[in-house]
Amino acid sequence: MSGPQTPEQTLDAQGDSSLCRKDEDIREGTQSSHRMLGFSDALLSIIATVMILPVTHTEISPEQQFDKSIQRLLATRIAVYLMTFLIVTVAWAAHTRLFQVVGKIDDTLALLNLACMMTITLLPYTFSLMVTFPDVPLGIFLFCVCVIAIGVVQALIVGYAFHFPHLLSPQIRCSAHRALSRRHILHLVLRGPVLCFLAAIFSLFFFPVSYLLMVTVIFLPYISKATSWCKDRLVGHRDPPTHSAEVFSFDLHEPLSKERVEAFSDGVYAIVATLLILDICEDNVPDPKAVKEQFRGSLVAALGAYGPHFLAYFGSFATVGLLWFAHHSLFLHVRKATQAMGLLNTLSLAFVGGLPLAYQQTAAFARQPRDELERVRLSCAIVFFASIFQFAIWTAALLRQAETLQPAVRFGGQEHAFMFAKLALYPCASLLAFAATCLLSRFSTAIFHVMQIAVPFAFLLLRLLVRLALASLHGLRHLRPAQPLRSQAPEEAQSQLLPSSC
Amino acid sequence: MSGPQTPEQTLDAQGDSSLCRKDEDIREGTQSSHRMLGFSDALLSIIATVMILPVTHTEISPEQQFDKSIQRLLATRIAVYLMTFLIVTVAWAAHTRLFQVVGKIDDTLALLNLACMMTITLLPYTFSLMVTFPDVPLGIFLFCVCVIAIGVVQALIVGYAFHFPHLLSPQIRCSAHRALSRRHILHLVLRGPVLCFLAAIFSLFFFPVSYLLMVTVIFLPYISKATSWCKDRLVGHRDPPTHSAEVFSFDLHEPLSKERVEAFSDGVYAIVATLLILDICEDNVPDPKAVKEQFRGSLVAALGAYGPHFLAYFGSFATVGLLWFAHHSLFLHVRKATQAMGLLNTLSLAFVGGLPLAYQQTAAFARQPRDELERVRLSCAIVFFASIFQFAIWTAALLRQAETLQPAVRFGGQEHAFMFAKLALYPCASLLAFAATCLLSRFSTAIFHVMQIAVPFAFLLLRLLVRLALASLHGLRHLRPAQPLRSQAPEEAQSQLLPSSC
Repeated sequence: MSGPQTPEQTLDAQGDSSLCRKDEDIREGTQSSHRMLGFSDALLSIIATVMILPVTHTEISPEQQFDKSIQRLLATRIAVYLMTFLIVTVAWAAHTRLFQVVGKIDDTLALLNLACMMTITLLPYTFSLMVTFPDVPLGIFLFCVCVIAIGVVQALIVGYAFHFPHLLSPQIRCSAHRALSRRHILHLVLRGPVLCFLAAIFSLFFFPVSYLLMVTVIFLPYISKATSWCKDRLVGHRDPPTHSAEVFSFDLHEPLSKERVEAFSDGVYAIVATLLILDICEDNVPDPKAVKEQFRGSLVAALGAYGPHFLAYFGSFATVGLLWFAHHSLFLHVRKATQAMGLLNTLSLAFVGGLPLAYQQTAAFARQPRDELERVRLSCAIVFFASIFQFAIWTAALLRQAETLQPAVRFGGQEHAFMFAKLALYPCASLLAFAATCLLSRFSTAIFHVMQIAVPFAFLLLRLLVRLALASLHGLRHLRPAQPLRSQAPEEAQSQLLPSSC
Repeated sequence: MSGPQTPEQTLDAQGDSSLCRKDEDIREGTQSSHRMLGFSDALLSIIATVMILPVTHTEISPEQQFDKSIQRLLATRIAVYLMTFLIVTVAWAAHTRLFQVVGKIDDTLALLNLACMMTITLLPYTFSLMVTFPDVPLGIFLFCVCVIAIGVVQALIVGYAFHFPHLLSPQIRCSAHRALSRRHILHLVLRGPVLCFLAAIFSLFFFPVSYLLMVTVIFLPYISKATSWCKDRLVGHRDPPTHSAEVFSFDLHEPLSKERVEAFSDGVYAIVATLLILDICEDNVPDPKAVKEQFRGSLVAALGAYGPHFLAYFGSFATVGLLWFAHHSLFLHVRKATQAMGLLNTLSLAFVGGLPLAYQQTAAFARQPRDELERVRLSCAIVFFASIFQFAIWTAALLRQAETLQPAVRFGGQEHAFMFAKLALYPCASLLAFAATCLLSRFSTAIFHVMQIAVPFAFLLLRLLVRLALASLHGLRHLRPAQPLRSQAPEEAQSQLLPSSC
């Protein structure tokens, strides 16, 4: 800290200026959008994830065969879950971009945002209709109506914000091409709804076209991104755009706000962790009559029968918690999230949302030991995909590290190694467990539980190992005082490349 | 803004210094605790609220009488919900205080915090056991074990943070009495667990004492607060403590961090809004067979039968959304939350968490029109209590406005009037609806729906009315140019009382 101010002074100055800004806001009737965005993130992440509940609530009684009709019902519900997750994430990304343009809100914008949220909450219902009645066009028609309504509300928000320019973000407010950027943003916001309007018309006489258009709407951002990327490769690599304020305001595809990616992910992890406890509280409290008759009034014996459930709960909570921990460590080093990282994060979260299913599968061991092997493998697969996509986020960030990472971690070394170890732990463990079940299929349950219990300890050991390695390195350095220059060289390079004010 | 820096410069300086701080953090291995606290808030708010689901899932088939056994089951589940909400809020408040002392985290603290969260998620289960088997001491024993485990983990966190003082918040790190404050905080953290240890011992031979001790643990902060308040009144009013850093670090009862109160409340509102859509998606998708047989294949007709459900959904979502909006407006003006405001907020949120019950009651109109009146009244009561406690928060804030409110709103006038109108809208509307059902009991459903649809428009009208009043005031001022001094006097007083740097 070579600047003239001590950290405390800076803190005070910040506090004062933020106080002043708040006072100004109140006089102008505007508000910081921070809390509203947090609320929207929480709402959207819960809507995206909560549709896993119908999947886990699909009743398969022990007598019943795992027959065609159950399979179809389960497949239907998993499809609804995945489609909901995908479309809500797309809506969330659009919402993020919109409020990168709109910097402040007032009461009207807050109410419009609530209307937008309410329309988004209806999307899962239209999916349920679509999947339950695939040959009736009403579901897709209602879906299109919802998307059009969302588009209209978002266009209203854009129009309102550009009508009162003090609500816009500083980059756009001070830009000379404000009218141009307004047209550009309206184009982005209304692109999907216009396609959906077409789909709604088609749904009235030839609805397969509507489904095609719907898929286009969902993948539109990625399609446009992929085509521009391919074009770049074919024509030749352009220089990356310099990050002036002007370019940023137009380059709305890149990058996502890190805070909102974190808030959305936190919401998903939090709801997944609590769905688990809900299942425990609803299903695993023994019935007083059964306790009296089957267990001769001994509550402890009755609870003992639920042992595997509790084991599964601890294992699943630890898995969710540690995946959150890995995500948290990962995003500490990230400065901005590119669109590719956003997509990988969505995929990772979609599998994290599937963890209650893994819990339910492993908790069912006690009741249905016969198809144990498939259940263990399914659980391993869910954990593997959830963690491997996290690993992929880190890889994607490293590929463009000048843009995406914090300056202090751009230079490899210990932090990189530690991060790789943290992120590789769950993919390796679940892959190992999967392989072990192939060899020792009789002990599959034991293998899975050992994995779930061993990984948290591995996380703790990881720290010890890294510290041991560091200590031994330090010891080695003291033994060889002849070459201190070479070992300090990377740190010097780092300090030269950092901004001079640091 | 009379300071030498323009807002943009301040912003840049903040950005740079926060970048520097992040780099320092990474080198030291510490992290800002901001995201971990947000995740904990989301987790705790969802755990607190999610126990309303067993209440709403209590099946009352139309044939069945609303008899004793159902009543008992419902009362049991509502008791579990309220107890869970209360104890989780107490745990959340303790967590908030703990991380006011611990300013930064590292990996070990993040893992310890996850362990703490996992133990807290088990509390609802122990309540379910307690309420289902009131005469078996196992439930209370397990509850005590959980609280002791939480206390041990929190004591570990305190010990770890004081062992590595760079993790402490600046006030305590720079304090001369660090050892003293450590003892004080450990005392606060371990007070509850010690009582629970006693309760666990008593539960083995005479468990009614355990219940008494448990209630003491839950209400401990409020009891100690109330006794000190009574003492103050009896002995004579002390001067309020000056807010030096030294006093703040010791006065851990006051005040709550505003950001965390907001994050916790947002979590509750978000999960309540999404529980509603979950019910819609699980219960209101018609069965393909039923559509074929009862509605001759017409999906539109089948959906028409669910009309009241959708109306109830829109009404409930609007209610949750607008209550959040009122809460948001309220906390925009709040600078710090006192303990009384925290308690009122908890009570308000507990009733907000009951809104899915109100939705379920009003959605059941179609099936069971006979006890409509009770259902409408129950819903009105839930909305009334949720909103009247919000109103009480504002009143409590006004009573100590020098400490709790932003400087710009301390002087009455338009903002105060607007705030009062916003917060009084729902209490008045629900009270009116309740009174109307007494007079016109035949139209109770219609009255309730009219209320739910009218209030959002009232919110919009409120703005128009205030603006009209302002415009007419402005017009009056121009008509009477002779006395401009008096009308500007309050603004001058305000600018004199504001900090000079503004």
